[in-house]
Amino acid sequence: MTTSTTQTSQIMETLGAQAKVAAQQLAQASTGQKNNALLKIREYLLSNKADILAANAIDMEAGEQNNLSPALLDRLALDESRIEAMAEGLSQIAKLPDPVGSINDMNTMPSGIQVGKMRVPIGVIGIIYESRPNVTIDAAALCLKSANACILRGGKEAMHSNKAIAKAISHGLQQAGLSPYCVQVIETTDRAMVTEMIQAEQFVDVIIPRGGKNLIAAISRDAKVPVIKHLDGICHVYIDDQADHDKAIAIAVNAKCRRFGICGSMETLLIHEAIASELLPELAKQYQQAGVELRGCDKTQVIISAVAATEEDWQTEYLGPILSIRVVTDIEQAMAHIAKYGSHHTDSIVTENYSRIQAFLRAVDSSSVMVNASTQFADGFEYGLGAEIGISTNKLHVRGPVGLEGLTTEKYIVLGDGTIRA
Amino acid sequence: MTTSTTQTSQIMETLGAQAKVAAQQLAQASTGQKNNALLKIREYLLSNKADILAANAIDMEAGEQNNLSPALLDRLALDESRIEAMAEGLSQIAKLPDPVGSINDMNTMPSGIQVGKMRVPIGVIGIIYESRPNVTIDAAALCLKSANACILRGGKEAMHSNKAIAKAISHGLQQAGLSPYCVQVIETTDRAMVTEMIQAEQFVDVIIPRGGKNLIAAISRDAKVPVIKHLDGICHVYIDDQADHDKAIAIAVNAKCRRFGICGSMETLLIHEAIASELLPELAKQYQQAGVELRGCDKTQVIISAVAATEEDWQTEYLGPILSIRVVTDIEQAMAHIAKYGSHHTDSIVTENYSRIQAFLRAVDSSSVMVNASTQFADGFEYGLGAEIGISTNKLHVRGPVGLEGLTTEKYIVLGDGTIRA
Repeated sequence: MTTSTTQTSQIMETLGAQAKVAAQQLAQASTGQKNNALLKIREYLLSNKADILAANAIDMEAGEQNNLSPALLDRLALDESRIEAMAEGLSQIAKLPDPVGSINDMNTMPSGIQVGKMRVPIGVIGIIYESRPNVTIDAAALCLKSANACILRGGKEAMHSNKAIAKAISHGLQQAGLSPYCVQVIETTDRAMVTEMIQAEQFVDVIIPRGGKNLIAAISRDAKVPVIKHLDGICHVYIDDQADHDKAIAIAVNAKCRRFGICGSMETLLIHEAIASELLPELAKQYQQAGVELRGCDKTQVIISAVAATEEDWQTEYLGPILSIRVVTDIEQAMAHIAKYGSHHTDSIVTENYSRIQAFLRAVDSSSVMVNASTQFADGFEYGLGAEIGISTNKLHVRGPVGLEGLTTEKYIVLGDGTIRA
Repeated sequence: MTTSTTQTSQIMETLGAQAKVAAQQLAQASTGQKNNALLKIREYLLSNKADILAANAIDMEAGEQNNLSPALLDRLALDESRIEAMAEGLSQIAKLPDPVGSINDMNTMPSGIQVGKMRVPIGVIGIIYESRPNVTIDAAALCLKSANACILRGGKEAMHSNKAIAKAISHGLQQAGLSPYCVQVIETTDRAMVTEMIQAEQFVDVIIPRGGKNLIAAISRDAKVPVIKHLDGICHVYIDDQADHDKAIAIAVNAKCRRFGICGSMETLLIHEAIASELLPELAKQYQQAGVELRGCDKTQVIISAVAATEEDWQTEYLGPILSIRVVTDIEQAMAHIAKYGSHHTDSIVTENYSRIQAFLRAVDSSSVMVNASTQFADGFEYGLGAEIGISTNKLHVRGPVGLEGLTTEKYIVLGDGTIRA
């Protein structure tokens, strides 16, 4: 199905205007009402598994006919346990504290006014994602709990699955007395809809893309609406010469090998030259056991067997079983390497030296800066956020794992008693 | 002087690269070092008043020859007391607490890691402003204290004044052992430089425009870099039928008449129909004494003498001695009016009714929502921020008066003890 530009912009106008009205209503909804909606969606999902699986089967069949890759088909596939996982996610988000309405930093000023900040929803959030149908539920649930109306644009290949899930969401919203326009799933598969949405400043307050780097880069380039984005995770561990050896090995192995394909996995190991010949052989052994290919600088290659690392290696997010290793002369060179090649995602220092920890914490400009911990901890659940819509490598508004609070903003509230300004 | 596009983009590359290096250095500077720079700038300003006034005289003469309006010439003009006011601003900013490095919300997670947030500078800030030369000092001082490198682009008509002030800044930075590239004043008067700067994503982290609505709208439209902006301030006071009469009159008069030309001044008064005939005559009397022209809805015109308000009036930021008045049936109609015509700047309710206060605080989507207080309080100094670079009507990152904290961001810090993720 294709639609003309006029049609897509009319669709966006309609969706946008409906979302704005729904957002005003949702901002006033009680915590109980929002939680009730989440639980009603959960119920409907569980009692309509068959319909959702049937819709998913249509997408899967089309995907196979269109020769989607096995990895893509796996992301697209639903089964009973994946539907149950979605339902469990809804329960968990219902249990989280409501971020909306909290009042912070209330102080009385010399004039007599009391000034504080109230946490409020952002408004309308546009979410653009690829093939995973479970994102439809996750994103809807997080937006609903944070009282934002959302417009969801999933992948074309998941359209039938998303429509079936949308039915559950719309049912739950209505059962809880909320407008079905609080969550709208775009059913037009036309790419032009994405362009419309990311430029619809009058309706959409923020865009959150979830997917591959190309999708996100294209959206960021063309968006007029602010984008909370995560481009890449070129994460480093720096092992200082004053590191505890056992901790260093445990962290360097875990940071790479626990999971290769997540954005918080280490892509480059930096190691102080005074400790390199002692630690690298043991590390190389463990990496070899885990099937990790090593690419090293000249000094690394003297100590262990490794392919020569190129300039490109330092700039690459492998997301797989490859690790680049560089021997550095000191913490300054390590930090300079991170500043030059890092992606401001997550970087860790392993050392027992107090002053170097302070320097690293202060100077490294990443969304998460770690000390004696594995970079694989970069995750909303591990940070206690309870849920996560993604990891932001933006500098403004929200940085690092984005939970419910990242989906809200603050406004000033001022309480007087007939107070006027002199 | 005009420059080619190639030249302007080369100038931007140079300025941008210098700013990025300076920003890294500045992020590590101690509070003492930053304060010292501020005080050295102050000293130099005071002991070189004559040079600055001479430079300003050149701008003033050119301005008169170019037939600048008296208002513009007044903004451009410097004298001894204005230079002393700039110096005083520098002392005040030096005295403010350093926002950089504070660590908040540090908690231990089940895995054993401690997770918290550290406040850090944003990086490089571009500031675009019009004729007031004092903005050069204010903006530089706020960026310096918050450890951001900045690139300043003032108005063409103030170029000689700004150059003379830039000399003081550069002198102070060097005296304090900081790179002169921490604050760079663009000396190219070509408009194309503005376009270059607002699109230089690789160098500039945020743009803050200060000036008229047209300047800000144009910058927002064309920017690729995020913009912290303030478009307009269409502020409302709603007088409820359960308002205390004396408080209501004091607030409605102060909100309009204290100063007409500031963004926090009331442009539309909304008043409950049950109280309108009692309060409007007294209010009209006081507005008349202050020289305020009244424009009212049909019901208003029955009670007091007022010009008929048009649809356009509700959408206008007068910034002058004009007030539109609308009689409403209840708080819902008042809030609907604010939602439709307001600019999300500052809106106030006057009432003694608890439930209506709660509803207003929660539902009105403005950067400042006030209760029984004059909208003219919308100001960084009144809110205890100590200084202000502007008022943001953005929803993300920072909303309302922007002080030092608004010029910073937070990163996660994670402390482990050889901790790995299971």
